[in-house]
Amino acid sequence: MDVYISGVGMTKFGRSKDLLERMMTEAATLALKDAQLERVDAIYIGVLNVEEFIGDSNFATLLADTLGLTGVPSTRVETASSTGAGAFQTAFYAVASGHMKHVLVLAGEKMTHLPAAKTTRILSEVIDRSERRYGATMPALAAMIAQKYAREFNLSPLKLEDVLAQVAIKNHSNGSFNPYAQFRKIITKEDYLKSQMISYPLRLYDCAPITDGASAIILTSQPTPIKVSGIGHATDTSAVRHRASFTSFNSTKEAASKAYTMAQLNPSDIQFAEVHDAFTLFEIIGTEDLGFFPRGRGWQALEKGNTQIQGNLPINPSGGLKSRGHPVGASGLAQLVEIVWQLRGEAGETRQLGRAEVGLAQSIGGLGNNNLVTILERSDRKRVMKEGWKPDYHPEIKILKKDTAPPPPEGIGHLETFTTLYATPEGFRSPLTLGFVKTKEAEMLMACNPDYRSPKELKMGKMVYFKTREGLYVFEKFTLWDRLKHWIKGSPKS
Amino acid sequence: MDVYISGVGMTKFGRSKDLLERMMTEAATLALKDAQLERVDAIYIGVLNVEEFIGDSNFATLLADTLGLTGVPSTRVETASSTGAGAFQTAFYAVASGHMKHVLVLAGEKMTHLPAAKTTRILSEVIDRSERRYGATMPALAAMIAQKYAREFNLSPLKLEDVLAQVAIKNHSNGSFNPYAQFRKIITKEDYLKSQMISYPLRLYDCAPITDGASAIILTSQPTPIKVSGIGHATDTSAVRHRASFTSFNSTKEAASKAYTMAQLNPSDIQFAEVHDAFTLFEIIGTEDLGFFPRGRGWQALEKGNTQIQGNLPINPSGGLKSRGHPVGASGLAQLVEIVWQLRGEAGETRQLGRAEVGLAQSIGGLGNNNLVTILERSDRKRVMKEGWKPDYHPEIKILKKDTAPPPPEGIGHLETFTTLYATPEGFRSPLTLGFVKTKEAEMLMACNPDYRSPKELKMGKMVYFKTREGLYVFEKFTLWDRLKHWIKGSPKS
Repeated sequence: MDVYISGVGMTKFGRSKDLLERMMTEAATLALKDAQLERVDAIYIGVLNVEEFIGDSNFATLLADTLGLTGVPSTRVETASSTGAGAFQTAFYAVASGHMKHVLVLAGEKMTHLPAAKTTRILSEVIDRSERRYGATMPALAAMIAQKYAREFNLSPLKLEDVLAQVAIKNHSNGSFNPYAQFRKIITKEDYLKSQMISYPLRLYDCAPITDGASAIILTSQPTPIKVSGIGHATDTSAVRHRASFTSFNSTKEAASKAYTMAQLNPSDIQFAEVHDAFTLFEIIGTEDLGFFPRGRGWQALEKGNTQIQGNLPINPSGGLKSRGHPVGASGLAQLVEIVWQLRGEAGETRQLGRAEVGLAQSIGGLGNNNLVTILERSDRKRVMKEGWKPDYHPEIKILKKDTAPPPPEGIGHLETFTTLYATPEGFRSPLTLGFVKTKEAEMLMACNPDYRSPKELKMGKMVYFKTREGLYVFEKFTLWDRLKHWIKGSPKS
Repeated sequence: MDVYISGVGMTKFGRSKDLLERMMTEAATLALKDAQLERVDAIYIGVLNVEEFIGDSNFATLLADTLGLTGVPSTRVETASSTGAGAFQTAFYAVASGHMKHVLVLAGEKMTHLPAAKTTRILSEVIDRSERRYGATMPALAAMIAQKYAREFNLSPLKLEDVLAQVAIKNHSNGSFNPYAQFRKIITKEDYLKSQMISYPLRLYDCAPITDGASAIILTSQPTPIKVSGIGHATDTSAVRHRASFTSFNSTKEAASKAYTMAQLNPSDIQFAEVHDAFTLFEIIGTEDLGFFPRGRGWQALEKGNTQIQGNLPINPSGGLKSRGHPVGASGLAQLVEIVWQLRGEAGETRQLGRAEVGLAQSIGGLGNNNLVTILERSDRKRVMKEGWKPDYHPEIKILKKDTAPPPPEGIGHLETFTTLYATPEGFRSPLTLGFVKTKEAEMLMACNPDYRSPKELKMGKMVYFKTREGLYVFEKFTLWDRLKHWIKGSPKS
């Protein structure tokens, strides 16, 4: 059964004094009004972590009751930071099954009321335990990915900085036209460079902010002007270091492949997209993973202006997570609200795209391991669907064979990538230098070095010596003395 | 599209030293083996609160990866203590939509590693905030419901005690035959009476235990011997005191109505059931709400032996939550695993029911406000389905009109029901007397009284005086002095 969208709504994103259920009620009320509905057959609630952010459980029930929809089945859905998209997809199946006619998808998060270090700690719980225990945060892992991207595609530190700044500048410019965005101010390269270093090389302006907000969509089996054409979902390894590539997300590629196949559309058919820019580089990686640009070339497309609001493939016309804000549970659904507004021609004079018949949203859960891709389309766009159609999209899915041998207690390896984290989570000293060390056996270890105070002292690809201290790997520069020991004793035990 | 079950599995429930993902892997592996599958199209993970029980988020991804199913879409679903059934229903729609062929539903919880007061506090977060702030726990609210049930249906305290003991004795006896049950020992009335008072009149043996465990089911669109005939889901008010009746759950009745309608079956067609006996009385209320016995007569059916494993309508042949154990996220799915085993004739010599072609499971989320009913049936049971069929089941759904006027700061009311809670959550002194006070305006208030040390001092239905202290309602016996003030001043301000 085909599934359509009959209503959308969202709150202004930003810092709010409202209770979460009040914000979510506001978004739901707007969506219900938009759909001209008073009741629905089911509710799907997307929240990432109300347990720790606001101390509530059984939130789906609370919401149904608060909405005045007491009695209506209500289910909470969670896929980490892609939760809004996860709830949308879950609701999609309920309608597609024919068992439900009208379904409300309602997503939100309340985050700004807690101290930053606590919020950082809560958000870090989406990270694999083995990496989290080193103090790794989302920005820290994203920073390690950024360093690796620069090295892999030959971007100097200055060039990388410039490219990342351009993403931030573009999205802040788009967001300045969006009345629902948290930040509506244009930023300059100078502003970007002045912004605080969060985890080298990522600055505050590279990271989506901490935000309160809610978004809502009504799905229906009755034809409306907006159709859900394609959906796809995939996971990846829990630990980032267990991946064959750090600079491309298998979960985006597999999700996109499913969505393109279902929609019978190619990447070249997509006219605009909302791409999960929780970190500036992720927008660039996203546009490559989705098949819009070749691998390692996303930054060039950005430089040429292709992804600008006036470009031939606008990315994040809403301002993205960067400028609209990132209430973690709500973002995946807010992306879809923006696409509906664009497809309906309701995005407002300054933000409305000229050609808007097919839009795509990509949402990242965790550190790129629970991703969803959704394609929405105008229903009046007639196309003939063909049995067995395959998209012109063949992403490379590389999988690392997991090593089950116990890792060596010490040894020599290469520093695959690293970061110096300044905004540490609760319980960790700042700054904190973290890295992935590749052993001779080609195994990747997470390691830290409490002694390095500045990223300038380290270089990617260099040899390091690693050892175990209090159950954690610690790495050090490989010194002349290590070389001597190495030469005398043979290789260190490993 | 019809949906079938091709595989089931569960761990032994109880106290476990295993990590939660290990237990869930064990259950999933058994279910996959049972279904002769190596891969599935999607995974639905049911966990109530991994955030606070084990400090993890993004658990759906962790599970897919731990299972060796890295890449497979994985979504976490939660509906409070009915989570296992909620995940099952969510997965059902995914298969029924035709978009998925084989889906793994995997539910679990790890709870025994925390101190009891902390576990109690975490579990209490499913309770409405306005009731939770008084220190209300699940047993406390269930105890208030038990008192009300006894009063409504004229059971003396001794009779109530005897009836509740009979549920516990029956379920422990059933559980003694279940190798997967946490408690496999038969208990006597004497054991019951010796067990610790948790919240008057509920004893330890009235409450499902704190348990670790996992259960798994594979759903498929390919015909197998077990078919999912009916599913239903409904919510109720977040706060218990906002209900027109405390001794019957609207959410069970609405969910059952949907499930019977979909399955085209009447309550009299159900041959056995797993009923959510988190508290002994809930089994009795459940059998009434499901239409098995008239309202207020469930305890008589129990006394007559109808619900015994040898009776004409066996309830909880598995031992129920009471004896099998209650790892909150897993229980709703474990009930369905038991039904599959019974329908297949695989429940084992001592537990296997003679006639087992149609079984029903009822799962309660929160304090009766997110409930699900699922009906499973043998596929070889041929029936003709009729368009527009309606079940012979017409439960009374009473809804209280919510009063929006601000409640009075003090006044006179009647003590609708009460309990004395001994096992208080973190941060509350024990014992704690809690009650619902009905004001003259027929509004129901939650109130406490720190002075009453024994439930014997109070009586239901009696007049009480209530006032506000530190933002909470406190109630006291209505004294001669109050009567005098009342007579002199007219009624107290209200």
